[in-house]
Amino acid sequence: MSEPVHSPGTDPGAAAAVAGIETVACIGAGVIGGGWVAYFLARGYRVRAWDPAPDAHTKLRRTIDAAWPALTELGLAPGADPDALEMAPTAADAVDGAGFVQESAPEDLDLKRALLAELAAATGDDVVVASSTSGYPMSDMATAAADPSRLVVGHPFNPPYLIPLVEVVGGRDTAPWAVSRAAAFYRHVGKSVIEMDRELPGFIANRLQEAIWREALHMVAQGEATVEQIDLSITDGPGLRWPVHGPCLTFHLAGGEGGMGHMLDHFGPSLKSPWTRLEAPELTGRLRDDMVAGAHASAGGRDMATLVAERDRAIIAVTRAVAAAREAGHA
Amino acid sequence: MSEPVHSPGTDPGAAAAVAGIETVACIGAGVIGGGWVAYFLARGYRVRAWDPAPDAHTKLRRTIDAAWPALTELGLAPGADPDALEMAPTAADAVDGAGFVQESAPEDLDLKRALLAELAAATGDDVVVASSTSGYPMSDMATAAADPSRLVVGHPFNPPYLIPLVEVVGGRDTAPWAVSRAAAFYRHVGKSVIEMDRELPGFIANRLQEAIWREALHMVAQGEATVEQIDLSITDGPGLRWPVHGPCLTFHLAGGEGGMGHMLDHFGPSLKSPWTRLEAPELTGRLRDDMVAGAHASAGGRDMATLVAERDRAIIAVTRAVAAAREAGHA
Repeated sequence: MSEPVHSPGTDPGAAAAVAGIETVACIGAGVIGGGWVAYFLARGYRVRAWDPAPDAHTKLRRTIDAAWPALTELGLAPGADPDALEMAPTAADAVDGAGFVQESAPEDLDLKRALLAELAAATGDDVVVASSTSGYPMSDMATAAADPSRLVVGHPFNPPYLIPLVEVVGGRDTAPWAVSRAAAFYRHVGKSVIEMDRELPGFIANRLQEAIWREALHMVAQGEATVEQIDLSITDGPGLRWPVHGPCLTFHLAGGEGGMGHMLDHFGPSLKSPWTRLEAPELTGRLRDDMVAGAHASAGGRDMATLVAERDRAIIAVTRAVAAAREAGHA
Repeated sequence: MSEPVHSPGTDPGAAAAVAGIETVACIGAGVIGGGWVAYFLARGYRVRAWDPAPDAHTKLRRTIDAAWPALTELGLAPGADPDALEMAPTAADAVDGAGFVQESAPEDLDLKRALLAELAAATGDDVVVASSTSGYPMSDMATAAADPSRLVVGHPFNPPYLIPLVEVVGGRDTAPWAVSRAAAFYRHVGKSVIEMDRELPGFIANRLQEAIWREALHMVAQGEATVEQIDLSITDGPGLRWPVHGPCLTFHLAGGEGGMGHMLDHFGPSLKSPWTRLEAPELTGRLRDDMVAGAHASAGGRDMATLVAERDRAIIAVTRAVAAAREAGHA
């Protein structure tokens, strides 16, 4: 499960290959699939959607209409048209002529297996089929496909029309070019892409998010904190730092001038404390050094004073932005 | 350890008692203690500080000067003066005449025990001594104090002059009025306060933050993700939602119209998935119902459409705020 399946990297051929795509097929039009439809329309694509629910078109229209003001505010691509949408009677019809396929069906492994096999069979040799799955490895989902080489995970975050992150990873039988092409396409449409070199249950962000969520459930179950206290502890606490610096860079700053190295050498023993129900790994010399090197890479050449100033500016601006967004709802 | 020690609540007597405080003593003037000094000065207090380091005054001056532009931008209290600071030769001198004491010494249990005992002995019967400790329970820190009734944890987040959250909790021998008074004082100076009714290692926010951190360390140790990927997965992903809606309210929105109830009924099985190394609690009917009730409390009367609109406005504003803060550093 943690064997590398693909060496990520920017592939100029992949970038060229995605530039000509004009139509995207969206399979499944619920909260996530509908969000993808709105996003692709805003980026100027024609979208062909399929969803077996009888009221799918009505709901999808509502999703697009609700998202459009935000997308307009962010800036539409030239020619972007909220009506450049066609509902297809079948999944095969939806992907016919599409240059990229985004599958966002319910999280049901058997359903995903059958659907991805159908989509792989109905698409051309150069069309990538990406799944929005929030946790299944493609190696488990691709088992029914005659040709699994073009099946890729392209995992978005809710709402897909606003959160930039997409996690891209192939399965055991995915061709490296398909992973590169999916990553290139998402970058081309303005997404922030993490190209993973190996499959990992929950990918990266969901593993981190799920660790918080499980600790929160334990705390409520044990009467240690209320839901409101948990939410407030994040929104008014570390949550204000995370949009600008991730958890590792945040701890790099906590180390003062000594950065991550000082932090680990100094606060390393707190890893033994029962501060969460998650057991920590042993802080080996190798892990320490990897974290220090990683923090410097994450800092990308910004020195500590620059990072601190950036953090402070961002916290003030984020605090104000959130207050204004809450206030607007009461107006 | 998880027995309730105090029933939190807003105490009008406590609010009145803190209104007359004019001088705050800050014991320890490192990154956290210095941040507290800057904050109290900006809120119009006179501060008496003590720190045994020979260069403490110089460093503290630098911390205040670095924080002052941000504090000015946020709005100073009338009469706020960055020079209303006096360095005291001893801890006892620093607390002499102070109406509130904030202790931010290094995280060393023996040191904290001796220092808190000294501070309790040197302060008047109505003065609360609050510790910035990031993890020690007050019941463990108060053991050397002749009178532990006024010793309280007041745990801030870095930087204390910008992050609103303060977690307040007493120890076994802390008087309830002292917890109420500490909470009232922090609220009075503009902090966002969580008043905990029981001791818990790491309090609330650090437990959640630590769960993410430990999962991140495991991932780097196993070669599953790089530090850069981990940071990017948060800053460009769920980190954009957390300043406006905490982890529970975020999942309430993920449930669509059905909210938290639908989310748990639908995605409950993913708690069995190996999406993190932290084992989930059993999702009992009671826990489900507590989470649903808690989500509604956390939503505070805002219906789903309002929450979604608020989230979207906030994500756009936060994204722009962070981009501008990063950009300003390159100017």
